[in-house]
Amino acid sequence: MQKAKARTLSGFMELLPQKQIIFNQMKDKIISVFKLNGLAPMDTPVLEYSDVLLAKAGGETEKQIYQFNKGSTDLCMRFDLTVPFAKYVSLYQNELTFPFRRYQVGKVFRGERAQKGRFREFYQCDIDIIDNEKLSLHSDAECIDILSQVYDALEQPILIKVNNRKIINGLLENFKLTEKTTEILILLDKKSKLDKELFLAEFNKITPMASEIIEILNSDTPQKLAEFNITNKTFLQGISEIQTIFKILQLLEVKNEIIFDLFTIRGLAYYTGTVFEAFLKNIPEQSSVSGGGRYDNLTESFSNKGFYGVGISIGLTRLFDLLDKNNLLEFSKTTTTTLALIPLTNIQELTNHCYGLSKQLKNNGINTEVLYFEKTFKNKLNYANKKKIPFIIVVGDDEIQNGSYSLKNMETGETVNTSLQGLIELLGGKA
Amino acid sequence: MQKAKARTLSGFMELLPQKQIIFNQMKDKIISVFKLNGLAPMDTPVLEYSDVLLAKAGGETEKQIYQFNKGSTDLCMRFDLTVPFAKYVSLYQNELTFPFRRYQVGKVFRGERAQKGRFREFYQCDIDIIDNEKLSLHSDAECIDILSQVYDALEQPILIKVNNRKIINGLLENFKLTEKTTEILILLDKKSKLDKELFLAEFNKITPMASEIIEILNSDTPQKLAEFNITNKTFLQGISEIQTIFKILQLLEVKNEIIFDLFTIRGLAYYTGTVFEAFLKNIPEQSSVSGGGRYDNLTESFSNKGFYGVGISIGLTRLFDLLDKNNLLEFSKTTTTTLALIPLTNIQELTNHCYGLSKQLKNNGINTEVLYFEKTFKNKLNYANKKKIPFIIVVGDDEIQNGSYSLKNMETGETVNTSLQGLIELLGGKA
Repeated sequence: MQKAKARTLSGFMELLPQKQIIFNQMKDKIISVFKLNGLAPMDTPVLEYSDVLLAKAGGETEKQIYQFNKGSTDLCMRFDLTVPFAKYVSLYQNELTFPFRRYQVGKVFRGERAQKGRFREFYQCDIDIIDNEKLSLHSDAECIDILSQVYDALEQPILIKVNNRKIINGLLENFKLTEKTTEILILLDKKSKLDKELFLAEFNKITPMASEIIEILNSDTPQKLAEFNITNKTFLQGISEIQTIFKILQLLEVKNEIIFDLFTIRGLAYYTGTVFEAFLKNIPEQSSVSGGGRYDNLTESFSNKGFYGVGISIGLTRLFDLLDKNNLLEFSKTTTTTLALIPLTNIQELTNHCYGLSKQLKNNGINTEVLYFEKTFKNKLNYANKKKIPFIIVVGDDEIQNGSYSLKNMETGETVNTSLQGLIELLGGKA
Repeated sequence: MQKAKARTLSGFMELLPQKQIIFNQMKDKIISVFKLNGLAPMDTPVLEYSDVLLAKAGGETEKQIYQFNKGSTDLCMRFDLTVPFAKYVSLYQNELTFPFRRYQVGKVFRGERAQKGRFREFYQCDIDIIDNEKLSLHSDAECIDILSQVYDALEQPILIKVNNRKIINGLLENFKLTEKTTEILILLDKKSKLDKELFLAEFNKITPMASEIIEILNSDTPQKLAEFNITNKTFLQGISEIQTIFKILQLLEVKNEIIFDLFTIRGLAYYTGTVFEAFLKNIPEQSSVSGGGRYDNLTESFSNKGFYGVGISIGLTRLFDLLDKNNLLEFSKTTTTTLALIPLTNIQELTNHCYGLSKQLKNNGINTEVLYFEKTFKNKLNYANKKKIPFIIVVGDDEIQNGSYSLKNMETGETVNTSLQGLIELLGGKA
């Protein structure tokens, strides 16, 4: 038989159990925060009709997409969770209750050039709050609060930069630069990657008012911004909205630092009001690890009826990779989900007892493994050590007669003798 | 702008929140059982090199596969979790500890013809226990036990049929029918779909010893089978193995009914010893909903070094669909993860208080939603009713002054007045 070479595609994360356990814990923590805030789960297919996914996609997106035919059907693998969400809302709008609050955690696929820190398959963790009529600004604040809660749960402090697109749009209206919006947004979006003088030079190429605009954009509070006495309505509405959101965020006692930053643009995507991005405080030089914002007309590719929404997107795979590479994850503990290992001996009576014990521990919610492999006790200890199983329970004749067990802590080497009830308590059982 | 028609591919399950919540609960329960038994998590990519996935695939499998080129790379979407597992073990064998015990829950893809109860995208929940030397029969028993625990957790009683391929292989050696193994296995595998006489007629076409073999295969205990005094070694080893496994299953006090059934074949796949299949007792006419068995040489497509293993596969999407169609799922409860809804009024002081309250409830693990949409109180009640949110908490001036809240049970209509501590207790908070 000819052998294939076992290998994994580059740009596709594949972890050993020790890291996979931590990855899954992060995923579970994120989902717990979403549920704690009363969001409904969604799970759309990985594959969709190409015309559905590409209805709104531009050139760059389309190049990255995994698109192919099966029979006569033109298919795409999803490249985000937003377009499938728009499809879902269009399709089931009569069966959903609005405001509709959802979360979705799933893999998305982008066949882009492999480069450092970029993945072709990655988990996105999205939430959206949408309504078929005007959506309260409380929703914007709630999304920022939930984003902050997520990073609290992950024990990673963040800095959240908040902006409102209406401010920059109004400003460009005021300076009669509306036609140059795209150019200017692209430049602002990459400001952090340019040095100060290059940024100014590039801006000057677009408009002679560059310095003046930059001075305005340097305002670090809505109050300072208001002092420029610009009377454009969109501009003023942007300021008013962001002030309202900051007030609500205060009520919500958000733990992470939140600042007002007029250079936060969040790409050229569909955002129309609030935009925000999160930065890891422990890795300050990195670009944003998650963000979101407000959009109008979610379903415009599918129908004339619009939906107003605000959402968050967290790129979990990239976040995990970043934290891992910066040694911000704790991997020391174990490579299995087993908490307690019970090694069997060859004596039938003891075997019976061990199985009974494992059953009782499992009934009390304690992750338990019986090690029945025909190996020496030393080999068994070795297995426990290699897998970093936290506890071993030794069952011998003495133990059965006395109704007591030896519980060995594999990290400290300490052994205690205790009853079944004692085991359950020491191992943190639910009973 | 031209509109696309919002639609989902047929054969791809997409659920409304009310059903998605139940689906996810089932998935979570299965994963909990896997963890309780100390299995390590795995998560391999959806996409792999085609030569990796197809190294062992036969004609029928290949036709179903989503295969395509991206640039010059020939890619496949995974059609099961076993081939990626074999790749994973080949690739990381020096970093894994054996016996290696894993679980994986993920979507797999088969572009087969759409037909009732068949999905093109579906979740598989797999476990495997493998070793690089001979694997104890305890592992076979453990897999059957874990399968039983899964259905206990799902509160769906099952019948588990257990067989051992060595018995039928030895029997065919004994009758000098080895060359007809494939034909006979295919026939046995579809016995339940044929009427008795047709089955016999088909068997007679293959061999004149059909009746004699059927009489032997009708043995419903290993003891009865032994009485035929067949001395073929493989046959006797099969009986001995199954007797050992039944003994261990007794020790494990498996709750579901387990029977010995020589017609359980589990297709033509790679099984070499124990095979088993589970049938829902509440839907007896259905074919099996999960199963598994023992295999040798997991990694033979990739290397000469073999791995011995035994595993389970549960087709969660099909299982959910079956239970749903047979009204065996309880959907009445809610369409959100929200347990308690706090409607805001327009009074600032109350708003502050409501946000504080929601924070305290969330800190106690209670899924809470603040309803801040500018609607009448009647509209807010309506929202809670449509989403089937179990509880509403009313916060008014009186409530703030007395430090007491009105908790309305939306199902019974009952209202109680209670303190913050009372709310936490009534809503099952973790504190």
